[in-house]
Amino acid sequence: MKVALLSITPNAEETIENAGRTAYLSFEKRVGHTEKSFIRMIIRKEHFSVLEHAYASFRIKGGSRSFTHQLVRHRLCSFTQQSQRFVDERRLRFIEPHAIKKNKKAHIIFSNFLNTSKKVYAKLLKLGIKNEDARFVLTNAVDSEIVITANFREWRHIIELRGSPEAQWEIRGILIKILQILKKYSPTVFEDFIVDEKDKIIKKNKCLS
Amino acid sequence: MKVALLSITPNAEETIENAGRTAYLSFEKRVGHTEKSFIRMIIRKEHFSVLEHAYASFRIKGGSRSFTHQLVRHRLCSFTQQSQRFVDERRLRFIEPHAIKKNKKAHIIFSNFLNTSKKVYAKLLKLGIKNEDARFVLTNAVDSEIVITANFREWRHIIELRGSPEAQWEIRGILIKILQILKKYSPTVFEDFIVDEKDKIIKKNKCLS
Amino acid sequence: MKVALLSITPNAEETIENAGRTAYLSFEKRVGHTEKSFIRMIIRKEHFSVLEHAYASFRIKGGSRSFTHQLVRHRLCSFTQQSQRFVDERRLRFIEPHAIKKNKKAHIIFSNFLNTSKKVYAKLLKLGIKNEDARFVLTNAVDSEIVITANFREWRHIIELRGSPEAQWEIRGILIKILQILKKYSPTVFEDFIVDEKDKIIKKNKCLS
Amino acid sequence: MKVALLSITPNAEETIENAGRTAYLSFEKRVGHTEKSFIRMIIRKEHFSVLEHAYASFRIKGGSRSFTHQLVRHRLCSFTQQSQRFVDERRLRFIEPHAIKKNKKAHIIFSNFLNTSKKVYAKLLKLGIKNEDARFVLTNAVDSEIVITANFREWRHIIELRGSPEAQWEIRGILIKILQILKKYSPTVFEDFIVDEKDKIIKKNKCLS
Repeated sequence: MKVALLSITPNAEETIENAGRTAYLSFEKRVGHTEKSFIRMIIRKEHFSVLEHAYASFRIKGGSRSFTHQLVRHRLCSFTQQSQRFVDERRLRFIEPHAIKKNKKAHIIFSNFLNTSKKVYAKLLKLGIKNEDARFVLTNAVDSEIVITANFREWRHIIELRGSPEAQWEIRGILIKILQILKKYSPTVFEDFIVDEKDKIIKKNKCLS
Repeated sequence: MKVALLSITPNAEETIENAGRTAYLSFEKRVGHTEKSFIRMIIRKEHFSVLEHAYASFRIKGGSRSFTHQLVRHRLCSFTQQSQRFVDERRLRFIEPHAIKKNKKAHIIFSNFLNTSKKVYAKLLKLGIKNEDARFVLTNAVDSEIVITANFREWRHIIELRGSPEAQWEIRGILIKILQILKKYSPTVFEDFIVDEKDKIIKKNKCLS
Repeated sequence: MKVALLSITPNAEETIENAGRTAYLSFEKRVGHTEKSFIRMIIRKEHFSVLEHAYASFRIKGGSRSFTHQLVRHRLCSFTQQSQRFVDERRLRFIEPHAIKKNKKAHIIFSNFLNTSKKVYAKLLKLGIKNEDARFVLTNAVDSEIVITANFREWRHIIELRGSPEAQWEIRGILIKILQILKKYSPTVFEDFIVDEKDKIIKKNKCLS
Repeated sequence: MKVALLSITPNAEETIENAGRTAYLSFEKRVGHTEKSFIRMIIRKEHFSVLEHAYASFRIKGGSRSFTHQLVRHRLCSFTQQSQRFVDERRLRFIEPHAIKKNKKAHIIFSNFLNTSKKVYAKLLKLGIKNEDARFVLTNAVDSEIVITANFREWRHIIELRGSPEAQWEIRGILIKILQILKKYSPTVFEDFIVDEKDKIIKKNKCLS
């Protein structure tokens, strides 16, 4: 599983303040206000729309089709995904859940089955079945590449929802990586989200926000 | 594959005219205008936003996970989908592409493999693997139930895109059924979309729209 | 200010339960569950997307242009609005804020000025200025007709935001009327929003939700 | 009227190609493909979603409230706008349509009336009326500052709709300025939109797209 930053609004926090000041023109209280305090005020007041002026795009490799099916349910994002209608069986890679990997019997059953799936897929193609039909035997474990773009308001929403203990380990793990990158480029906007490295979850520090 | 209408705006075309007239208040040319001619004018002028005031919801049973993964990419809709995190293996049903069904060898390979997938899934559960991890061996062929709600403008868009020859047979087949139901309740809004029963595609009659 | 229901999902709460059950298929715990308890569970768990399968459309007459400018900022709705590019000066009506009406001096200044605006608008038209330019002298007080359609999840969001004490009196007053109508057709979905008739605000009963 | 670029995706066309390639992974036809030809192929095939991975934000000063009311109807954008609930009368500036400016009589009527509106607004404030109510006498001519962020797919849509001869002169003029800036940073994505300097409209070159 690899998460790579593809693009991010340059000087994101400065841009947010710059855009957001428009709504507060008449206040004329700019003096002394730093970007940090402006963004904190915005978040405290839940005036989140201002955060929509900054964007980040990521390329995620090595997520399963279960993961991408969950991810694309977020409708305020933009996605480009590798289509299985044109996939080449030599490129097929599989994601193995940790719980299966560490269970010897389960691991063997899982591995054998996925090897079979690869062969079945190849056989169907040889019998003249088109990719778009042969792929019906591909499993959720097949890896898939996806590019996602979202604004910072939406990233906060996805991180909160999918980084929580109720979310699945795979999407949670990917969001931890995304959050760690976002924190580098925009420390204030994401400062209230804390990665719990031990339990692999994201917590929200309500005192900060 | 079963498509059932769950809900539709009552008197949809009357509602559209009723809402749409607001934009044309000052014209004062209501006399002689019927719903049909109003809606045709709206579509001819591409003033599609007026069609957003009517909605239809469908329950789709027996579509594959490939199909639902395509469908949920439409972001201006609302979806409720059966989660595979809680699925019971006794409920597993599979979709078999027509091209596989009619190819004897392919059909046997396909059927055997899917039966195996069911057993592997059950074995993993017995070994203590949780549903959310065991489902990694489930295939795209597994059937999935989904409810979709969209407004008429968006239905026109989905029908045009997913009913075309470039779309996959499964999503195309489902949209043909949806279109046939929509035409009963709102004949004018969807009159320019014509089902080609022979080729199982939807054509757009540009002279009508 | 007049709020009229144009259309609403028939049997909205039954439809919501019907759609929402799909996500809970495997639970098989339907017995004893009523619509009411299902919807309450949905709201308690913040599984709000299920509420998107029900819709309501309203026609709002006699709101000011200030009000409509605020309202159309809600992006998950559909709007049809009377255009000022084609408005007839004989149709011009004005909204007078209560605070101005009850202040004698302010009321006289306000009324005289708005009468002048009407005459100036008419004069510009007579001088050959087109409506779309003459309307630059029209004020925020001019009344405007608008039709809005939104799903129940979005209605909850708008009601919470625009019914609060921070919102302006005009949009708050309109949302109180909308809420009262929604409560008739869908008492459970909106039961946690309480109209405070004295202060003309909407409160949220957090114990209920 | 002043349009200033606030932020744009760095190397926008390279980013679009980079993101878009994901959907075409299996094609393995990268060789010889330049960004330009990739983007042209995307637009020709109407695979517009790939253009959503690039963004641009603008600050627009000196547009009228008529203009901003039109602009915010575009729902796939993000806006931050100066609120009239807190406006200071000393800051009030007005937009005068060209057709009024060049008509001597109309110009005088217009100017006098707007001066009066300023005084009436100030008087109401002195009488203790709050800004949020006093602003009911402010006209559509009042200038307003707005920040808008949209992705390139949406910019193409807005430019096509609001740059056409049917659009109003003000929004058309602002979109011409926006298009000219976008063309500098992303010449290929916007190459099929041509500014007609004489008629102040935007034409679409269908041969190019």
